[in-house]
Amino acid sequence: MSGSDGSGPAGRDHPFDAAVALKPADTGDGTYTGATHPAYANMVGPYGGITAATLLEAVQCHPERLGVPVSLTVNYAGPVADGEFTVSARPSRTNRSTQHWSLELTQDGRVITTATAVYAARRDTWADTEATMPDVPEPEAVPVTPMPDEVQWAKNYEMRFLDGALPALEGAPESPDSTTMLWVRDAPARPLDFPALASLCDVFYPRVFLRRGQAMPAGTISLTVYFHADEAVLADHGTRPVLARARSNRFGRSYFDQSACLWGTGGELLATTHQLVYFKG
Amino acid sequence: MSGSDGSGPAGRDHPFDAAVALKPADTGDGTYTGATHPAYANMVGPYGGITAATLLEAVQCHPERLGVPVSLTVNYAGPVADGEFTVSARPSRTNRSTQHWSLELTQDGRVITTATAVYAARRDTWADTEATMPDVPEPEAVPVTPMPDEVQWAKNYEMRFLDGALPALEGAPESPDSTTMLWVRDAPARPLDFPALASLCDVFYPRVFLRRGQAMPAGTISLTVYFHADEAVLADHGTRPVLARARSNRFGRSYFDQSACLWGTGGELLATTHQLVYFKG
Repeated sequence: MSGSDGSGPAGRDHPFDAAVALKPADTGDGTYTGATHPAYANMVGPYGGITAATLLEAVQCHPERLGVPVSLTVNYAGPVADGEFTVSARPSRTNRSTQHWSLELTQDGRVITTATAVYAARRDTWADTEATMPDVPEPEAVPVTPMPDEVQWAKNYEMRFLDGALPALEGAPESPDSTTMLWVRDAPARPLDFPALASLCDVFYPRVFLRRGQAMPAGTISLTVYFHADEAVLADHGTRPVLARARSNRFGRSYFDQSACLWGTGGELLATTHQLVYFKG
Repeated sequence: MSGSDGSGPAGRDHPFDAAVALKPADTGDGTYTGATHPAYANMVGPYGGITAATLLEAVQCHPERLGVPVSLTVNYAGPVADGEFTVSARPSRTNRSTQHWSLELTQDGRVITTATAVYAARRDTWADTEATMPDVPEPEAVPVTPMPDEVQWAKNYEMRFLDGALPALEGAPESPDSTTMLWVRDAPARPLDFPALASLCDVFYPRVFLRRGQAMPAGTISLTVYFHADEAVLADHGTRPVLARARSNRFGRSYFDQSACLWGTGGELLATTHQLVYFKG
Protein backbone atom coordinates (compact mmCIF):
# COMPACT_ATOMS: atom_id res chain seq x y z
CA MET A 1 0.00 0.00 0.00
CA SER A 2 1.25 3.49 -0.79
CA GLY A 3 1.77 5.68 2.25
CA SER A 4 0.27 9.13 2.57
CA ASP A 5 3.71 10.55 1.84
CA GLY A 6 3.28 9.37 -1.74
CA SER A 7 6.08 6.78 -1.66
CA GLY A 8 5.20 3.55 -3.43
CA PRO A 9 5.75 0.00 -2.21
CA ALA A 10 9.22 -1.49 -2.49
CA GLY A 11 10.36 -1.72 -6.08
CA ARG A 12 7.48 0.27 -7.55
CA ASP A 13 9.68 3.30 -8.18
CA HIS A 14 11.84 1.21 -10.49
CA PRO A 15 11.93 2.16 -14.20
CA PHE A 16 10.77 -1.38 -14.99
CA ASP A 17 7.55 -0.80 -13.06
CA ALA A 18 6.99 2.52 -14.80
CA ALA A 19 7.59 0.87 -18.18
CA VAL A 20 5.07 -1.98 -17.69
CA ALA A 21 2.45 0.10 -15.85
CA LEU A 22 -1.05 -0.30 -17.29
CA LYS A 23 -4.21 1.65 -16.57
CA PRO A 24 -7.53 -0.23 -16.91
CA ALA A 25 -9.86 1.36 -19.45
CA ASP A 26 -13.29 2.50 -18.25
CA THR A 27 -14.84 -0.27 -20.33
CA GLY A 28 -13.75 -2.81 -17.70
CA ASP A 29 -13.35 -5.55 -20.32
CA GLY A 30 -9.67 -6.34 -19.90
CA THR A 31 -8.53 -3.36 -21.97
CA TYR A 32 -5.66 -1.28 -20.66
CA THR A 33 -3.64 1.72 -21.75
CA GLY A 34 0.11 2.01 -21.35
CA ALA A 35 2.92 4.00 -22.89
CA THR A 36 6.44 3.38 -24.12
CA HIS A 37 9.16 4.37 -21.66
CA PRO A 38 12.32 6.07 -22.98
CA ALA A 39 14.52 4.03 -20.64
CA TYR A 40 13.66 0.84 -22.58
CA ALA A 41 14.09 2.24 -26.08
CA ASN A 42 15.78 0.03 -28.70
CA MET A 43 16.82 0.72 -32.30
CA VAL A 44 13.29 0.51 -33.70
CA GLY A 45 10.65 0.72 -30.96
CA PRO A 46 11.15 -0.56 -27.41
CA TYR A 47 13.17 -3.55 -26.20
CA GLY A 48 11.19 -6.71 -26.95
CA GLY A 49 11.53 -7.95 -23.39
CA ILE A 50 9.66 -4.96 -21.99
CA THR A 51 6.82 -5.53 -24.46
CA ALA A 52 6.60 -9.18 -23.37
CA ALA A 53 6.59 -8.07 -19.73
CA THR A 54 3.86 -5.51 -20.40
CA LEU A 55 1.60 -8.11 -22.03
CA LEU A 56 2.14 -10.47 -19.11
CA GLU A 57 1.43 -7.60 -16.70
CA ALA A 58 -1.99 -7.22 -18.32
CA VAL A 59 -2.85 -10.75 -17.18
CA GLN A 60 -1.14 -10.32 -13.81
CA CYS A 61 -3.42 -7.40 -12.94
CA HIS A 62 -6.55 -8.83 -14.58
CA PRO A 63 -9.30 -9.53 -12.00
CA GLU A 64 -10.15 -12.90 -13.60
CA ARG A 65 -6.59 -14.24 -13.49
CA LEU A 66 -6.17 -17.75 -12.06
CA GLY A 67 -2.79 -19.05 -10.86
CA VAL A 68 0.64 -18.27 -12.25
CA PRO A 69 2.05 -18.10 -15.77
CA VAL A 70 3.52 -21.33 -17.12
CA SER A 71 3.81 -20.40 -20.80
CA LEU A 72 3.93 -17.15 -22.79
CA THR A 73 4.32 -16.59 -26.55
CA VAL A 74 4.71 -13.08 -27.94
CA ASN A 75 4.65 -12.31 -31.67
CA TYR A 76 6.19 -9.02 -32.71
CA ALA A 77 4.11 -8.00 -35.73
CA GLY A 78 5.42 -4.46 -36.05
CA PRO A 79 7.40 -1.82 -34.17
CA VAL A 80 5.71 -0.11 -31.21
CA ALA A 81 5.72 3.64 -31.94
CA ASP A 82 6.77 6.00 -29.15
CA GLY A 83 3.76 6.96 -27.06
CA GLU A 84 0.53 5.38 -25.87
CA PHE A 85 -0.70 1.90 -26.69
CA THR A 86 -3.68 -0.28 -25.83
CA VAL A 87 -3.42 -3.81 -24.46
CA SER A 88 -6.38 -6.18 -24.51
CA ALA A 89 -6.32 -9.30 -22.35
CA ARG A 90 -9.05 -11.89 -22.84
CA PRO A 91 -9.35 -15.26 -21.06
CA SER A 92 -10.14 -17.49 -24.01
CA ARG A 93 -10.85 -20.45 -21.75
CA THR A 94 -10.78 -21.13 -18.01
CA ASN A 95 -10.54 -24.70 -16.79
CA ARG A 96 -10.28 -26.13 -13.30
CA SER A 97 -6.50 -25.77 -13.12
CA THR A 98 -5.48 -23.92 -16.30
CA GLN A 99 -6.44 -20.65 -17.94
CA HIS A 100 -5.66 -19.62 -21.52
CA TRP A 101 -5.24 -15.97 -22.49
CA SER A 102 -5.32 -14.15 -25.82
CA LEU A 103 -3.53 -10.79 -25.83
CA GLU A 104 -3.06 -7.95 -28.29
CA LEU A 105 -1.16 -4.69 -28.18
CA THR A 106 -2.57 -2.10 -30.59
CA GLN A 107 -1.87 1.51 -31.56
CA ASP A 108 -4.47 3.55 -33.43
CA GLY A 109 -6.43 0.33 -33.89
CA ARG A 110 -3.58 -1.44 -35.66
CA VAL A 111 -2.20 -4.73 -34.27
CA ILE A 112 1.42 -4.28 -33.14
CA THR A 113 1.95 -7.39 -31.01
CA THR A 114 -0.07 -10.55 -30.41
CA ALA A 115 0.44 -13.01 -27.58
CA THR A 116 -0.97 -16.03 -25.86
CA ALA A 117 -0.34 -17.09 -22.28
CA VAL A 118 -1.21 -20.13 -20.21
CA TYR A 119 -1.70 -19.77 -16.48
CA ALA A 120 -2.03 -22.67 -14.08
CA ALA A 121 -2.57 -23.73 -10.52
CA ARG A 122 0.62 -25.72 -9.92
CA ARG A 123 0.77 -28.64 -7.52
CA ASP A 124 3.57 -30.61 -5.91
CA THR A 125 4.73 -33.44 -8.14
CA TRP A 126 7.83 -35.47 -8.80
CA ALA A 127 10.57 -33.06 -9.90
CA ASP A 128 13.97 -33.09 -11.53
CA THR A 129 16.17 -30.73 -13.53
CA GLU A 130 18.22 -32.12 -16.42
CA ALA A 131 19.58 -28.75 -17.58
CA THR A 132 21.96 -28.26 -14.69
CA MET A 133 23.63 -24.89 -14.22
CA PRO A 134 27.14 -24.68 -15.66
CA ASP A 135 29.98 -24.45 -13.16
CA VAL A 136 30.80 -20.74 -13.29
CA PRO A 137 32.35 -18.11 -11.01
CA GLU A 138 30.10 -16.24 -8.58
CA PRO A 139 28.58 -13.06 -10.06
CA GLU A 140 30.76 -10.80 -7.89
CA ALA A 141 33.87 -12.35 -9.45
CA VAL A 142 32.83 -11.38 -12.98
CA PRO A 143 33.24 -7.76 -14.15
CA VAL A 144 30.24 -5.77 -15.28
CA THR A 145 30.45 -5.00 -19.03
CA PRO A 146 28.05 -2.33 -20.24
CA MET A 147 26.62 -2.55 -23.75
CA PRO A 148 27.50 0.33 -26.12
CA ASP A 149 26.15 3.64 -24.89
CA GLU A 150 23.57 3.94 -27.67
CA VAL A 151 21.80 0.72 -26.57
CA GLN A 152 19.38 2.49 -24.23
CA TRP A 153 17.46 -0.53 -22.88
CA ALA A 154 20.61 -2.37 -21.83
CA LYS A 155 21.31 0.30 -19.20
CA ASN A 156 18.50 -1.29 -17.19
CA TYR A 157 20.47 -4.51 -16.88
CA GLU A 158 23.68 -5.26 -15.02
CA MET A 159 25.48 -7.71 -17.34
CA ARG A 160 28.50 -9.80 -16.36
CA PHE A 161 29.57 -11.84 -19.40
CA LEU A 162 31.15 -15.26 -18.95
CA ASP A 163 31.11 -16.15 -22.63
CA GLY A 164 30.14 -14.51 -25.93
CA ALA A 165 30.09 -10.83 -24.97
CA LEU A 166 28.99 -8.42 -27.69
CA PRO A 167 31.80 -8.30 -30.25
CA ALA A 168 33.34 -5.02 -31.31
CA LEU A 169 30.99 -3.96 -34.07
CA GLU A 170 33.80 -3.28 -36.53
CA GLY A 171 36.67 -5.58 -37.34
CA ALA A 172 35.61 -8.37 -34.95
CA PRO A 173 36.30 -11.97 -36.02
CA GLU A 174 33.54 -14.41 -36.91
CA SER A 175 32.72 -16.93 -34.17
CA PRO A 176 32.04 -20.62 -34.84
CA ASP A 177 29.61 -20.81 -31.89
CA SER A 178 26.64 -18.62 -31.01
CA THR A 179 26.74 -19.18 -27.25
CA THR A 180 26.46 -16.23 -24.88
CA MET A 181 26.43 -16.72 -21.11
CA LEU A 182 26.10 -13.98 -18.54
CA TRP A 183 25.04 -13.14 -15.02
CA VAL A 184 22.32 -10.52 -15.35
CA ARG A 185 19.84 -8.62 -13.20
CA ASP A 186 17.81 -5.44 -13.28
CA ALA A 187 19.78 -2.24 -12.71
CA PRO A 188 19.09 -0.89 -10.19
CA ALA A 189 18.40 -4.22 -8.48
CA ARG A 190 14.72 -5.17 -8.23
CA PRO A 191 12.99 -8.25 -6.79
CA LEU A 192 12.37 -10.79 -9.55
CA ASP A 193 8.73 -11.35 -10.53
CA PHE A 194 7.07 -12.94 -13.56
CA PRO A 195 7.08 -9.85 -15.81
CA ALA A 196 10.73 -9.14 -14.95
CA LEU A 197 11.66 -12.77 -15.68
CA ALA A 198 9.82 -12.59 -19.01
CA SER A 199 11.78 -9.46 -19.88
CA LEU A 200 15.10 -11.09 -18.95
CA CYS A 201 14.30 -13.89 -21.41
CA ASP A 202 14.95 -11.43 -24.26
CA VAL A 203 18.19 -10.00 -22.84
CA PHE A 204 20.55 -11.58 -25.39
CA TYR A 205 21.75 -9.43 -28.28
CA PRO A 206 21.14 -11.10 -31.67
CA ARG A 207 23.22 -14.30 -32.01
CA VAL A 208 24.02 -13.46 -35.62
CA PHE A 209 26.11 -10.48 -34.41
CA LEU A 210 28.33 -12.92 -32.52
CA ARG A 211 28.60 -15.44 -35.35
CA ARG A 212 29.39 -12.83 -37.99
CA GLY A 213 31.38 -10.43 -35.82
CA GLN A 214 29.24 -7.52 -36.97
CA ALA A 215 25.92 -5.82 -36.39
CA MET A 216 23.17 -6.02 -38.99
CA PRO A 217 19.39 -5.49 -39.07
CA ALA A 218 17.80 -8.14 -36.80
CA GLY A 219 14.70 -8.40 -34.64
CA THR A 220 12.76 -11.01 -32.68
CA ILE A 221 9.64 -12.12 -34.51
CA SER A 222 8.31 -14.62 -31.93
CA LEU A 223 9.33 -15.27 -28.32
CA THR A 224 8.22 -18.13 -26.09
CA VAL A 225 8.87 -18.42 -22.35
CA TYR A 226 8.24 -21.50 -20.21
CA PHE A 227 8.16 -20.54 -16.53
CA HIS A 228 9.59 -23.24 -14.29
CA ALA A 229 9.69 -20.97 -11.24
CA ASP A 230 6.56 -20.41 -9.21
CA GLU A 231 5.83 -17.49 -6.87
CA ALA A 232 7.68 -19.03 -3.92
CA VAL A 233 10.82 -19.58 -5.99
CA LEU A 234 10.74 -16.00 -7.28
CA ALA A 235 10.21 -14.61 -3.78
CA ASP A 236 13.18 -16.63 -2.59
CA HIS A 237 15.29 -15.44 -5.51
CA GLY A 238 14.90 -11.78 -4.64
CA THR A 239 17.27 -9.33 -6.33
CA ARG A 240 20.14 -11.72 -7.05
CA PRO A 241 21.48 -12.14 -10.60
CA VAL A 242 20.25 -14.83 -12.99
CA LEU A 243 22.63 -16.98 -15.02
CA ALA A 244 21.44 -16.76 -18.61
CA ARG A 245 22.81 -18.84 -21.47
CA ALA A 246 21.61 -18.72 -25.09
CA ARG A 247 22.51 -20.50 -28.28
CA SER A 248 21.13 -20.84 -31.81
CA ASN A 249 20.45 -24.06 -33.68
CA ARG A 250 20.26 -22.77 -37.24
CA PHE A 251 20.65 -19.57 -39.26
CA GLY A 252 19.43 -19.21 -42.83
CA ARG A 253 16.99 -17.74 -45.33
CA SER A 254 16.36 -14.56 -43.24
CA TYR A 255 15.74 -16.26 -39.86
CA PHE A 256 17.53 -17.92 -36.97
CA ASP A 257 16.30 -19.50 -33.77
CA GLN A 258 17.63 -19.16 -30.23
CA SER A 259 17.11 -21.28 -27.12
CA ALA A 260 18.12 -20.22 -23.63
CA CYS A 261 18.10 -21.28 -20.00
CA LEU A 262 17.86 -18.90 -17.01
CA TRP A 263 19.03 -20.22 -13.65
CA GLY A 264 18.84 -18.70 -10.20
CA THR A 265 22.03 -18.14 -8.25
CA GLY A 266 21.45 -21.39 -6.36
CA GLY A 267 21.20 -23.41 -9.57
CA GLU A 268 17.43 -23.54 -9.89
CA LEU A 269 16.21 -23.46 -13.51
CA LEU A 270 13.78 -20.52 -13.48
CA ALA A 271 12.77 -20.41 -17.15
CA THR A 272 13.56 -21.83 -20.56
CA THR A 273 12.94 -19.56 -23.53
CA HIS A 274 13.03 -19.75 -27.29
CA GLN A 275 12.76 -17.24 -30.06
CA LEU A 276 12.79 -16.85 -33.81
CA VAL A 277 14.69 -13.84 -35.09
CA TYR A 278 14.65 -12.07 -38.45
CA PHE A 279 18.00 -10.96 -39.85
CA LYS A 280 19.25 -9.33 -43.00
CA GLY A 281 22.78 -10.05 -44.09
CA MET B 1 -5.94 -31.57 -60.21
CA SER B 2 -8.19 -34.56 -59.65
CA GLY B 3 -8.78 -36.68 -62.71
CA SER B 4 -12.23 -37.54 -63.99
CA ASP B 5 -11.69 -41.06 -62.62
CA GLY B 6 -12.01 -39.58 -59.13
CA SER B 7 -8.45 -40.27 -58.06
CA GLY B 8 -6.86 -37.43 -56.09
CA PRO B 9 -3.42 -35.94 -56.60
CA ALA B 10 -0.44 -37.81 -55.15
CA GLY B 11 -0.71 -38.17 -51.40
CA ARG B 12 -4.23 -36.79 -51.09
CA ASP B 13 -5.68 -40.20 -50.34
CA HIS B 14 -3.51 -40.42 -47.23
CA PRO B 15 -5.24 -40.52 -43.81
CA PHE B 16 -3.22 -37.43 -42.87
CA ASP B 17 -4.89 -35.44 -45.64
CA ALA B 18 -8.30 -36.66 -44.62
CA ALA B 19 -7.58 -35.70 -41.00
CA VAL B 20 -6.49 -32.12 -41.74
CA ALA B 21 -9.06 -31.47 -44.49
CA LEU B 22 -11.00 -28.24 -44.00
CA LYS B 23 -14.06 -26.91 -45.80
CA PRO B 24 -14.39 -23.12 -46.09
CA ALA B 25 -17.59 -21.81 -44.53
CA ASP B 26 -20.01 -19.90 -46.75
CA THR B 27 -19.16 -16.75 -44.81
CA GLY B 28 -15.82 -16.53 -46.68
CA ASP B 29 -14.15 -14.89 -43.68
CA GLY B 30 -11.44 -17.45 -42.98
CA THR B 31 -13.77 -19.80 -41.11
CA TYR B 32 -13.56 -23.49 -41.89
CA THR B 33 -15.18 -26.69 -40.73
CA GLY B 34 -13.30 -29.92 -40.13
CA ALA B 35 -13.83 -33.12 -38.19
CA THR B 36 -11.79 -35.42 -36.00
CA HIS B 37 -10.47 -38.52 -37.75
CA PRO B 38 -10.51 -41.86 -35.88
CA ALA B 39 -7.06 -42.76 -37.24
CA TYR B 40 -5.49 -39.96 -35.17
CA ALA B 41 -7.33 -40.61 -31.90
CA ASN B 42 -5.36 -40.32 -28.67
CA MET B 43 -6.32 -41.05 -25.04
CA VAL B 44 -8.43 -37.88 -24.62
CA GLY B 45 -9.24 -36.27 -27.97
CA PRO B 46 -7.01 -36.44 -31.04
CA TYR B 47 -3.20 -36.51 -31.24
CA GLY B 48 -1.93 -32.96 -30.60
CA GLY B 49 0.20 -33.02 -33.73
CA ILE B 50 -2.81 -33.46 -35.99
CA THR B 51 -4.54 -30.51 -34.33
CA ALA B 52 -1.43 -28.36 -34.90
CA ALA B 53 -1.35 -29.51 -38.52
CA THR B 54 -5.04 -28.73 -38.98
CA LEU B 55 -4.59 -25.17 -37.67
CA LEU B 56 -1.63 -24.65 -39.98
CA GLU B 57 -3.66 -26.08 -42.87
CA ALA B 58 -6.23 -23.32 -42.30
CA VAL B 59 -3.53 -20.76 -43.11
CA GLN B 60 -2.06 -22.85 -45.92
CA CYS B 61 -5.38 -22.84 -47.78
CA HIS B 62 -6.36 -19.26 -46.87
CA PRO B 63 -6.56 -17.01 -49.95
CA GLU B 64 -4.74 -14.15 -48.18
CA ARG B 65 -1.73 -16.25 -47.15
CA LEU B 66 1.68 -14.76 -47.91
CA GLY B 67 4.86 -16.87 -47.95
CA VAL B 68 5.68 -19.88 -45.82
CA PRO B 69 5.36 -20.62 -42.09
CA VAL B 70 8.37 -19.73 -39.97
CA SER B 71 6.78 -19.98 -36.52
CA LEU B 72 3.71 -21.68 -35.05
CA THR B 73 2.46 -21.81 -31.45
CA VAL B 74 -0.54 -23.96 -30.51
CA ASN B 75 -2.18 -23.81 -27.08
CA TYR B 76 -4.27 -26.83 -26.13
CA ALA B 77 -7.00 -25.31 -23.97
CA GLY B 78 -9.25 -28.37 -23.80
CA PRO B 79 -9.81 -31.75 -25.43
CA VAL B 80 -11.28 -31.82 -28.94
CA ALA B 81 -14.48 -33.88 -28.79
CA ASP B 82 -15.07 -36.49 -31.48
CA GLY B 83 -16.88 -34.92 -34.41
CA GLU B 84 -17.03 -31.58 -36.20
CA PHE B 85 -15.10 -28.46 -35.25
CA THR B 86 -14.70 -24.93 -36.56
CA VAL B 87 -11.36 -23.28 -37.31
CA SER B 88 -11.06 -19.53 -37.72
CA ALA B 89 -7.93 -18.07 -39.33
CA ARG B 90 -7.44 -14.31 -39.24
CA PRO B 91 -4.42 -12.40 -40.54
CA SER B 92 -3.84 -10.03 -37.62
CA ARG B 93 -1.24 -8.05 -39.55
CA THR B 94 0.34 -8.26 -43.00
CA ASN B 95 3.69 -6.57 -43.60
CA ARG B 96 5.89 -6.42 -46.67
CA SER B 97 7.68 -9.68 -45.85
CA THR B 98 5.87 -11.13 -42.81
CA GLN B 99 2.29 -12.03 -41.97
CA HIS B 100 0.92 -12.74 -38.49
CA TRP B 101 -2.04 -15.07 -37.97
CA SER B 102 -4.44 -15.59 -35.08
CA LEU B 103 -6.19 -18.96 -35.05
CA GLU B 104 -8.88 -20.64 -32.99
CA LEU B 105 -10.45 -24.07 -33.04
CA THR B 106 -13.92 -24.10 -31.47
CA GLN B 107 -16.70 -26.62 -30.87
CA ASP B 108 -20.23 -25.44 -30.08
CA GLY B 109 -18.82 -21.93 -29.71
CA ARG B 110 -16.35 -22.95 -27.01
CA VAL B 111 -12.62 -22.36 -27.50
CA ILE B 112 -10.75 -25.68 -27.67
CA THR B 113 -7.39 -24.61 -29.13
CA THR B 114 -5.77 -21.23 -29.80
CA ALA B 115 -2.77 -20.62 -32.01
CA THR B 116 -0.63 -17.97 -33.61
CA ALA B 117 1.52 -18.37 -36.70
CA VAL B 118 4.05 -16.20 -38.46
CA TYR B 119 4.49 -16.53 -42.20
CA ALA B 120 7.30 -14.92 -44.17
CA ALA B 121 8.81 -14.38 -47.57
CA ARG B 122 12.28 -15.86 -47.01
CA ARG B 123 15.35 -14.64 -48.85
CA ASP B 124 18.84 -15.97 -49.36
CA THR B 125 21.14 -14.94 -46.50
CA TRP B 126 24.25 -16.16 -44.77
CA ALA B 127 23.48 -19.60 -43.32
CA ASP B 128 24.88 -22.07 -40.84
CA THR B 129 23.62 -24.94 -38.68
CA GLU B 130 25.03 -25.38 -35.19
CA ALA B 131 22.76 -28.25 -34.18
CA THR B 132 24.40 -30.85 -36.38
CA MET B 133 22.72 -34.20 -36.86
CA PRO B 134 24.03 -36.95 -34.55
CA ASP B 135 26.03 -39.71 -36.21
CA VAL B 136 23.45 -42.49 -36.38
CA PRO B 137 22.78 -45.59 -38.51
CA GLU B 138 20.72 -45.21 -41.69
CA PRO B 139 16.96 -45.63 -41.14
CA GLU B 140 16.89 -48.98 -42.94
CA ALA B 141 19.38 -50.37 -40.40
CA VAL B 142 17.09 -49.61 -37.45
CA PRO B 143 14.11 -51.87 -36.74
CA VAL B 144 10.59 -50.45 -36.75
CA THR B 145 9.09 -50.54 -33.24
CA PRO B 146 5.35 -50.00 -33.08
CA MET B 147 3.84 -48.22 -30.09
CA PRO B 148 1.35 -50.26 -28.00
CA ASP B 149 -1.70 -51.29 -30.00
CA GLU B 150 -4.06 -48.98 -28.09
CA VAL B 151 -2.13 -45.85 -29.17
CA GLN B 152 -4.21 -45.26 -32.29
CA TRP B 153 -2.46 -42.16 -33.68
CA ALA B 154 0.99 -43.77 -33.56
CA LYS B 155 -0.08 -46.26 -36.24
CA ASN B 156 0.23 -43.37 -38.70
CA TYR B 157 3.96 -43.12 -38.02
CA GLU B 158 6.77 -45.54 -38.83
CA MET B 159 9.06 -45.22 -35.80
CA ARG B 160 12.61 -46.56 -35.61
CA PHE B 161 14.00 -45.83 -32.15
CA LEU B 162 17.71 -45.17 -31.68
CA ASP B 163 17.41 -44.09 -28.04
CA GLY B 164 14.71 -43.79 -25.40
CA ALA B 165 12.00 -46.04 -26.83
CA LEU B 166 8.74 -46.17 -24.88
CA PRO B 167 9.45 -48.14 -21.70
CA ALA B 168 7.35 -51.12 -20.72
CA LEU B 169 4.52 -49.45 -18.88
CA GLU B 170 4.79 -51.75 -15.88
CA GLY B 171 7.95 -52.60 -14.01
CA ALA B 172 10.27 -50.49 -16.19
CA PRO B 173 13.24 -48.81 -14.49
CA GLU B 174 13.49 -45.05 -14.03
CA SER B 175 15.80 -43.31 -16.51
CA PRO B 176 18.23 -40.53 -15.55
CA ASP B 177 17.87 -38.89 -18.97
CA SER B 178 14.77 -37.89 -20.93
CA THR B 179 16.28 -38.17 -24.41
CA THR B 180 14.40 -40.00 -27.15
CA MET B 181 15.79 -40.21 -30.67
CA LEU B 182 14.10 -41.92 -33.60
CA TRP B 183 13.80 -42.05 -37.35
CA VAL B 184 10.17 -41.33 -38.14
CA ARG B 185 7.91 -40.75 -41.11
CA ASP B 186 4.25 -40.95 -42.03
CA ALA B 187 2.89 -44.48 -42.50
CA PRO B 188 2.12 -45.07 -45.27
CA ALA B 189 4.87 -42.81 -46.62
CA ARG B 190 3.73 -39.35 -47.71
CA PRO B 191 5.68 -36.37 -49.12
CA LEU B 192 6.64 -34.01 -46.29
CA ASP B 193 4.89 -30.63 -46.26
CA PHE B 194 4.47 -27.94 -43.59
CA PRO B 195 1.39 -29.43 -41.88
CA ALA B 196 3.01 -32.89 -41.82
CA LEU B 197 6.21 -31.44 -40.37
CA ALA B 198 4.21 -29.59 -37.70
CA SER B 199 2.49 -32.85 -36.80
CA LEU B 200 5.82 -34.71 -36.56
CA CYS B 201 6.98 -32.11 -34.03
CA ASP B 202 4.59 -33.65 -31.49
CA VAL B 203 5.54 -37.26 -32.19
CA PHE B 204 7.38 -37.89 -28.90
CA TYR B 205 5.51 -39.69 -26.13
CA PRO B 206 5.63 -37.74 -22.83
CA ARG B 207 9.22 -37.50 -21.49
CA VAL B 208 8.01 -38.14 -17.96
CA PHE B 209 7.04 -41.71 -18.96
CA LEU B 210 10.69 -42.35 -19.82
CA ARG B 211 12.11 -40.70 -16.71
CA ARG B 212 9.73 -42.47 -14.32
CA GLY B 213 9.45 -45.78 -16.19
CA GLN B 214 5.66 -45.58 -16.09
CA ALA B 215 2.68 -43.98 -17.78
CA MET B 216 0.67 -41.28 -16.02
CA PRO B 217 -1.78 -38.55 -17.04
CA ALA B 218 0.10 -36.08 -19.24
CA GLY B 219 -0.74 -33.73 -22.10
CA THR B 220 0.82 -30.94 -24.12
CA ILE B 221 -0.44 -27.52 -23.06
CA SER B 222 1.54 -25.38 -25.52
CA LEU B 223 3.58 -26.34 -28.59
CA THR B 224 5.89 -24.09 -30.63
CA VAL B 225 7.47 -24.97 -33.97
CA TYR B 226 10.19 -23.00 -35.74
CA PHE B 227 10.36 -24.00 -39.39
CA HIS B 228 13.89 -23.90 -40.77
CA ALA B 229 12.94 -25.72 -43.97
CA ASP B 230 11.36 -23.82 -46.81
CA GLU B 231 9.26 -25.25 -49.66
CA ALA B 232 12.27 -26.26 -51.76
CA VAL B 233 13.83 -28.18 -48.86
CA LEU B 234 10.57 -30.01 -48.17
CA ALA B 235 10.11 -30.87 -51.83
CA ASP B 236 13.63 -32.25 -51.89
CA HIS B 237 13.03 -34.24 -48.70
CA GLY B 238 10.11 -36.15 -50.16
CA THR B 239 8.97 -39.24 -48.26
CA ARG B 240 12.20 -40.05 -46.47
CA PRO B 241 12.30 -40.39 -42.65
CA VAL B 242 13.16 -37.52 -40.34
CA LEU B 243 15.61 -37.89 -37.46
CA ALA B 244 13.83 -36.53 -34.38
CA ARG B 245 15.48 -36.04 -30.99
CA ALA B 246 13.75 -34.63 -27.90
CA ARG B 247 14.82 -33.87 -24.37
CA SER B 248 13.40 -32.07 -21.32
CA ASN B 249 15.13 -29.39 -19.27
CA ARG B 250 13.03 -29.48 -16.12
CA PHE B 251 10.13 -31.37 -14.54
CA GLY B 252 8.25 -30.11 -11.51
CA ARG B 253 5.07 -28.64 -10.01
CA SER B 254 2.76 -30.28 -12.60
CA TYR B 255 4.69 -29.26 -15.75
CA PHE B 256 7.75 -30.14 -17.78
CA ASP B 257 9.23 -28.70 -20.94
CA GLN B 258 10.63 -30.46 -24.00
CA SER B 259 12.88 -29.26 -26.81
CA ALA B 260 13.49 -31.17 -30.01
CA CYS B 261 15.31 -31.05 -33.32
CA LEU B 262 14.08 -32.66 -36.56
CA TRP B 263 16.66 -33.31 -39.27
CA GLY B 264 16.26 -34.52 -42.82
CA THR B 265 18.04 -37.69 -43.91
CA GLY B 266 20.86 -35.61 -45.39
CA GLY B 267 21.48 -33.78 -42.11
CA GLU B 268 19.48 -30.61 -42.82
CA LEU B 269 17.79 -29.19 -39.72
CA LEU B 270 14.15 -28.95 -40.80
CA ALA B 271 12.55 -27.68 -37.59
CA THR B 272 13.18 -27.02 -33.93
CA THR B 273 10.25 -27.42 -31.59
CA HIS B 274 9.43 -26.84 -27.96
CA GLN B 275 6.53 -27.71 -25.73
CA LEU B 276 5.23 -27.41 -22.21
CA VAL B 277 3.48 -30.50 -20.90
CA TYR B 278 1.14 -31.03 -17.97
CA PHE B 279 1.66 -34.15 -15.91
CA LYS B 280 0.17 -35.67 -12.80
CA GLY B 281 2.35 -37.92 -10.72
